[in-house]
Amino acid sequence: MTTLFEHAWVLTMDDAFTEHRDGYVLVQGERIAALGEGAYDGDASVGTRIDCRGGILLPGFVNTHCHAAMIPFRTMGDDCPDRLRRFLFPLENEAMTAELVYLGACYGIAEMLLAGVTTFVDMYYFEEEVARACIETGMRGYLGETVIGQSTCDAQAPYGGLTRAARMLEAYRGCDLVRPILAPHGTTTCDAQALIRCHELAHKHGALMTLHAGEMDYEMAHFAERGTTPIGFLDEIGVLDARLLAAHCIHLSEADIALLARRGARVAHCIASNTKAGKGVAPVRALREAGVPVSLGTDGPSSGNTLSLFDQMRLFANAHKTVNRDRSLFPARQIVALATRGGAAALGAQHEFGMLAPGMRADIALVETQSVNMFPVYNPYSALVYSANAMNVRAVMANGVLRVMDGALTGIDLPALRARLTRAMGPFTSSAARYADCI
Amino acid sequence: MTTLFEHAWVLTMDDAFTEHRDGYVLVQGERIAALGEGAYDGDASVGTRIDCRGGILLPGFVNTHCHAAMIPFRTMGDDCPDRLRRFLFPLENEAMTAELVYLGACYGIAEMLLAGVTTFVDMYYFEEEVARACIETGMRGYLGETVIGQSTCDAQAPYGGLTRAARMLEAYRGCDLVRPILAPHGTTTCDAQALIRCHELAHKHGALMTLHAGEMDYEMAHFAERGTTPIGFLDEIGVLDARLLAAHCIHLSEADIALLARRGARVAHCIASNTKAGKGVAPVRALREAGVPVSLGTDGPSSGNTLSLFDQMRLFANAHKTVNRDRSLFPARQIVALATRGGAAALGAQHEFGMLAPGMRADIALVETQSVNMFPVYNPYSALVYSANAMNVRAVMANGVLRVMDGALTGIDLPALRARLTRAMGPFTSSAARYADCI
Repeated sequence: MTTLFEHAWVLTMDDAFTEHRDGYVLVQGERIAALGEGAYDGDASVGTRIDCRGGILLPGFVNTHCHAAMIPFRTMGDDCPDRLRRFLFPLENEAMTAELVYLGACYGIAEMLLAGVTTFVDMYYFEEEVARACIETGMRGYLGETVIGQSTCDAQAPYGGLTRAARMLEAYRGCDLVRPILAPHGTTTCDAQALIRCHELAHKHGALMTLHAGEMDYEMAHFAERGTTPIGFLDEIGVLDARLLAAHCIHLSEADIALLARRGARVAHCIASNTKAGKGVAPVRALREAGVPVSLGTDGPSSGNTLSLFDQMRLFANAHKTVNRDRSLFPARQIVALATRGGAAALGAQHEFGMLAPGMRADIALVETQSVNMFPVYNPYSALVYSANAMNVRAVMANGVLRVMDGALTGIDLPALRARLTRAMGPFTSSAARYADCI
Repeated sequence: MTTLFEHAWVLTMDDAFTEHRDGYVLVQGERIAALGEGAYDGDASVGTRIDCRGGILLPGFVNTHCHAAMIPFRTMGDDCPDRLRRFLFPLENEAMTAELVYLGACYGIAEMLLAGVTTFVDMYYFEEEVARACIETGMRGYLGETVIGQSTCDAQAPYGGLTRAARMLEAYRGCDLVRPILAPHGTTTCDAQALIRCHELAHKHGALMTLHAGEMDYEMAHFAERGTTPIGFLDEIGVLDARLLAAHCIHLSEADIALLARRGARVAHCIASNTKAGKGVAPVRALREAGVPVSLGTDGPSSGNTLSLFDQMRLFANAHKTVNRDRSLFPARQIVALATRGGAAALGAQHEFGMLAPGMRADIALVETQSVNMFPVYNPYSALVYSANAMNVRAVMANGVLRVMDGALTGIDLPALRARLTRAMGPFTSSAARYADCI
C-alpha cells in the first residue's frame, strides 16, 4: 500500500520547523517513505493519491491525557462545584459497564480521529474494552486501567484495577496500537504502597505510568498539612522518574518544578479542563524553562468537553500569553509543536511519531484551508492555533491507514455507533436522575 | 413569507430561560409570529418548513465589537509585540482601499452569518463600503467610520472620518439593516475635542458611540501620568453616558466600574482578542455586579482571528472561571445570554432582537446536534459553550430572511468572493512584505 499526499503545505515539525509550501508526503505501509517540495518524482508506484488542495499537512496530534469512554457524561453538570465527588465518582460506580466503556471509547476515538488525533493516553475502567476499541478502529492508545483505593465499577476491592492492569501488560505485549501503561488514579486516591506497586510493574514491563497530580485544592491541602506537595510525595516514595507522565500539575512550587526536571518526569497539560474548572493555569513557561517535557491533553469529554487538540491549542495560547502578560510568548508554531512532537516526546516516542520524516510512522492530519475561517493563511501555525477547529480536518492517516477521508470516518459508521451508544446509555441516564440537583 | 422551524430544542433566552424541548418557531415577514412546544397548530399557511432534527434553535448572536473588513490581515504577525503601531496602522494606511474594505466586509459578514451572527458593531475606514456589504448580504450592522487624529487610508486630514460619519448618519437614517454610529478610535488616539464632537453627533442623531478604552498599556500610562484613567477622562469631558459602548475595558479601577455603572455606559468584552494579546482579562464579574451591561465582541479577524461568538463563549467561560477560581461562576446559560440578549441590551435593542418571542425580529440560529462533538446534550447551553463551534451552525435567519441553509450561504458565492478578494489583495500583500520582520 503506497499513498501519496500531494499539493499540501507540509509542516514537518522537525527541529528546524521545515515546511514544504507545495509539498508531498509518500507513505509506504505504516511508515513515511519520502517527503519534499513540489511533485513526487521517485520510483514508487503510487496506489492512492490525495490532492490536498493547498491544505495544511502535519503530524497527527498526540493527546496525552484522556478518559475517552466518558462520553455519556458530556454536558452533565459542567458548572457544578466539586463534581468529581458529588456525582462523577458515584454515578460512574453505579452505572458504568463494560459495554458502555466499549461504546464510549469507540465514540471518543471516532471524535479524536475526526479531529486529527492519532495517539492518545487513556485512563479508565474496563480498560480492556478501550483496547478492543483501539484495535477495531486503528487508533494508537497508551492505555491504563485505573488503580484506585476504592470500589469501582469494575472491581469491588480497592486497587482491584491492578489485576486488570497486569493482565493488559501481558495481553498486549509488543502490540503496535495498544500500549499498556500503569494508571494509578492520583496522589490522594492511591496510597504509597499502591503507587509503588504500579511503579514496579511499569519498570518491569518497560511501560509508562500516569496519574493525576497537583490538580485539586483538597489534594494540595492534604500534602500541605504534611509539609510537602504531591510532587514531593511522589519523589519521596521513589516513583518520580522518566517513566512518569503527571497529568495537570496546575499547582507546583519552584521546588516541584526543579524536582520534575531533575527526575526527567513529564507533564500532560490539560488547559481546557483545568480552566473550565476554575482550577488555574499550570506554570508551563517555568516547566519548559526548567527542561520538563510538556504535552497537551484534552482530559475526558466531560472535563475538557471536546477531544480536539485545536481547542487545547487555542486555549493554551490565550491562557499562557495572558498569565505571562506577553503576546510573543509561545508563538503559534511552538504550540503546534506541543500538540504533536511534544506529545510524542512525553511518551518517549519522539523517534517514532509526532514528526513528518522518512522512517517515522505515518500519523498524518490534513487540515483544509477552503472553509471561511481559514483565509488568508500567511502563517499556517497561526491558522491552526487561532482559527481552525476539528471540523477543518479533512483526512487522517493513523499508522499508515486512512481513517478519515473528506472529513468522514472510513471505518466507523458514526450514526449507527451513536444509536447503539444511546440505547446502552438508558440505565446510565436513569441513574443520573438521582443527581438532578448537581446536573 | 412564512417560515416554520420545527422539531427544535428552542432556547428563547427570555428572562426565565424558557425552553421548548421539541418546539417550533413561526416567522412571518421580519418578525417572530409564534413559538411553543410540540407541533405548530395555528392558522398561518406555512411557506417554508425547516426540520431542525432536534438541533438547538436560539437567537442570532450579537457581535458588539468588530473590524470586519480586516480579513486581509488574518494570521499576519499574530504573536508580534506592539503590532498595532509596528505594522497594522502603517500597512492599513498604505494599502487599505475602498475595494478591499468592501470585499473584506462581504467576506467577514459571510463568516459571521455562517457562525450564526445576525448583528454586529463595526468600526473601520471607508465604512460606507461596509454599509453596502450589509445591505447586499442582509446583515444588520451598527457601523461607525473611524475618527482618529492621524492621516488614514480614507482621509488625509486628522479626524477626516467625521465628515464620512456625518454623511452616513444622513444616508442611512431610518434604515433597518444599517444603523450608523459614531466611532472615535480611542482615548489616546483622539483628543477631547474630537470625542466631544462625536458625542454631540451621536446625541443629535440618537446614535450609539463606541471606542477602544482601557485596552493598551501605553494608554493606561498616559492617563496615569495625568492622575486619571481612560474612563475617568471620558467622564471628565462629558462623553460617558448610556450611548457609549466602550470596547475592551480590560484595565478598570473600582472607581471606573462605579462610574461606568452610574453613567449607564456599556462594555463590549473581547476575550479572544484581549487574551491572545496577553493584555489581561476584563473584570466582567465586577462589572456585572455593579450593573454594567456587558456584551461579547470578536474584535477584528486579525485580533480575535475568528468572527465566531462560539470561540468567545468558550474563552469567556474558561478565562473568567479561572480568574475568579470558581467553576460555578458564569454557568453556561449566562454566557449564551451574554452572546445574544446581552448584545442586544448593550445596543439598547433588547426589545427588538436577542430573544425569541412573538414580535421580535426574526434573527435565529440553528445549531445541529448530529456532529460528533455534539453528543450527548443534557444541557444545550453547555453544548453551545463548551463543545460547539461555528461549523455546527446549520441555518441562520437574519431579519426574517434565511441567509444560511444546510450550513451554506444562500446569497453569497463564497469561492467567487474569496477569489475576488484574493485578487484585490495583491498590492496589499506586496506592501506587507515591507514588514517581514514583524510578520
